[in-house]
Amino acid sequence: MYQHPQEDYSYMDNHYLDNSATTQVCKEAADAAYTMMRINYGNPSSLHQMGIRAEEAVEEARRIIADSLSVQAKNIFFTSGGTEANNTVLFGAAQALKRRGDRIIVSAVEHSSVYESAKRLSELGYDVQFAPVNADGVIDIDAFKGLLTDKTILVSVMTVNNETGSIQPIERIAKLVHKNCPEALFHTDAVQAYGKIPLKPKKLGVDLMSLSAHKIHGAKGCGALYIRDGARILPLLYGGEQQHKLRPGTESAPLIAAFATAVVCLDISQNMEYIKRLNAYALETLKAIDSISINSPDNALPYIINISVSGIRSETMLHHLEESGVYVSSSSACAKGKRSYVLEAMGVPDDRIDSSLRISFSKYNIKEDIDALVEGLREGIATLQRK
Amino acid sequence: MYQHPQEDYSYMDNHYLDNSATTQVCKEAADAAYTMMRINYGNPSSLHQMGIRAEEAVEEARRIIADSLSVQAKNIFFTSGGTEANNTVLFGAAQALKRRGDRIIVSAVEHSSVYESAKRLSELGYDVQFAPVNADGVIDIDAFKGLLTDKTILVSVMTVNNETGSIQPIERIAKLVHKNCPEALFHTDAVQAYGKIPLKPKKLGVDLMSLSAHKIHGAKGCGALYIRDGARILPLLYGGEQQHKLRPGTESAPLIAAFATAVVCLDISQNMEYIKRLNAYALETLKAIDSISINSPDNALPYIINISVSGIRSETMLHHLEESGVYVSSSSACAKGKRSYVLEAMGVPDDRIDSSLRISFSKYNIKEDIDALVEGLREGIATLQRK
Repeated sequence: MYQHPQEDYSYMDNHYLDNSATTQVCKEAADAAYTMMRINYGNPSSLHQMGIRAEEAVEEARRIIADSLSVQAKNIFFTSGGTEANNTVLFGAAQALKRRGDRIIVSAVEHSSVYESAKRLSELGYDVQFAPVNADGVIDIDAFKGLLTDKTILVSVMTVNNETGSIQPIERIAKLVHKNCPEALFHTDAVQAYGKIPLKPKKLGVDLMSLSAHKIHGAKGCGALYIRDGARILPLLYGGEQQHKLRPGTESAPLIAAFATAVVCLDISQNMEYIKRLNAYALETLKAIDSISINSPDNALPYIINISVSGIRSETMLHHLEESGVYVSSSSACAKGKRSYVLEAMGVPDDRIDSSLRISFSKYNIKEDIDALVEGLREGIATLQRK
Repeated sequence: MYQHPQEDYSYMDNHYLDNSATTQVCKEAADAAYTMMRINYGNPSSLHQMGIRAEEAVEEARRIIADSLSVQAKNIFFTSGGTEANNTVLFGAAQALKRRGDRIIVSAVEHSSVYESAKRLSELGYDVQFAPVNADGVIDIDAFKGLLTDKTILVSVMTVNNETGSIQPIERIAKLVHKNCPEALFHTDAVQAYGKIPLKPKKLGVDLMSLSAHKIHGAKGCGALYIRDGARILPLLYGGEQQHKLRPGTESAPLIAAFATAVVCLDISQNMEYIKRLNAYALETLKAIDSISINSPDNALPYIINISVSGIRSETMLHHLEESGVYVSSSSACAKGKRSYVLEAMGVPDDRIDSSLRISFSKYNIKEDIDALVEGLREGIATLQRK
């Protein structure tokens, strides 16, 4: 099962259109991880040269991630992924600021790692509010304003939704938070946005930002958290002296090096131009099919298209498509097939939710992947709807 | 910096004797991670074939780790490392059992990820007690018995100490806990023991056991937690449906596959015979040097030897040794040079603590590494003590 590839298998006979679930690690990033595992294998905390060389690799990676956000390296903390980054923010801010207030606001369409953490904080006695979204999946600004009180200590709104690609007006939301609740921290889960659109937390007014490696051709098991100077949160983990004790534990030097390498290998604007063309081609062909409706808003991130296929349950179509090597998702991978609360919050009717599919692109996709998808969908509609 | 090795560099011109800080990832494990990053790169939660194949790899790894402990796969949860596993236990048990009592007992020589978590729980109002150890670093059983009350909800005692190799009488401690405090959970941090001595949590009476991959030629960023059936703890992280929601977040399939592969490549008894011979050779030559005293007890795990070099500060000698490519540690890597509270708890005098060094072996060490160490120590004693 665990054979080492003798050559580059980056093109395989499939049509992987589930890149918001996870991506293939690019060769350069995998090679970086390999080198850190086999050669530069010291513990970054060790005081000798083997440790120092590993530490240099970790700190170089920290600078690369920081540069990509136009922030300083000291404000970047590596985590085991987006889930840990989001949990660190939710629980760390709630604990650090509990003397100032108890209100926490998150949008109704957050990833489960924010959503479930918020629900847990509600159980623990915090006054947690879920801000509603409109039919485009975008936060309802008037309703949101009404939730901002002087007891508010944390607001968390994702940059791009993982199921629909809806983009939130982060800068505007940040301004509202800072104006109305000067003591509150503003966090954005940027896991689906990072590496796809330029992000500058300082310019956006973001205090805390979560990132993940495996959505952008880094490896699963690595993420990062940006923390603005002075934005004090408590750690989620306690232990050694690593990362200023905000995130102790031996740094995963292999995955951190892979993460930074993946970032270096990204060309955000070139990829965006390419994905926009793929997206336009896909939308044009998908809209031509009667049974298909588009759930993503017109101005969604072009990396994600959420559709519904009238009368065919998501999983049925998903398995039909995989027979032709086309891989898509029903809602988010983390939900393992549970009904989408994201589409529910957007007011999508139940039958459309139950037949929804998420198509998500990466720079490795080509026009032929979309052709295979459309062919599979047409075939599925012809054969499955009859049953 | 992140070049891919063109060939096997597993032998390098150095003498790495800091294997309790971290180990080189074995080739088989690194190859397994590489395959998971480049080929079998699906998200284990995805419902399509790409997801299922990744999930199979994760579940195969879970079975391998479970088998190595003679437990069932459903009782193994993957984490980002030993620190997260230990934190999950300390905070998860404290929260789950707080209605039954508030006393938590940990030994005075625990790894910082248990020690600091316990201190945090004390700040949060729990009645945390640190059980003292004797001059061998072994828990003082009479004192320990005195700490067991009917309010005790969690006891955490490590199997092998990371600085000295002292082995705790886990089975005896577990019996005492279960007899005197039937409601309490017993946890052991087995990070330094796993893969070196056979461990059967059920036979030992252990409810919870923490493991780490990178101490046994797996990669940094991966660990596991054994949880006995019925031993209920709350999660540390909230989010997706992964790992029965006890540990959500996309599994690091590459590092999990590497972990299991490293376990498969271990031969505990063969390695133990080999390390015993290395250890005997090292002790014999070290004891022949007047200025050196041995801090590890006679019956310590042979993988670790803690020594003090009279009159020479740890870091001074550490940097002297690295000039000849000999890498050892001053106390634990996670402490980054801070004074050892472990040796303090054993009653080692201050001057010996300040001159202590940890030598730690792996199966990759050879007799020549010890010769280089001893030569470096002799040279250092001759030149550095004069200053």
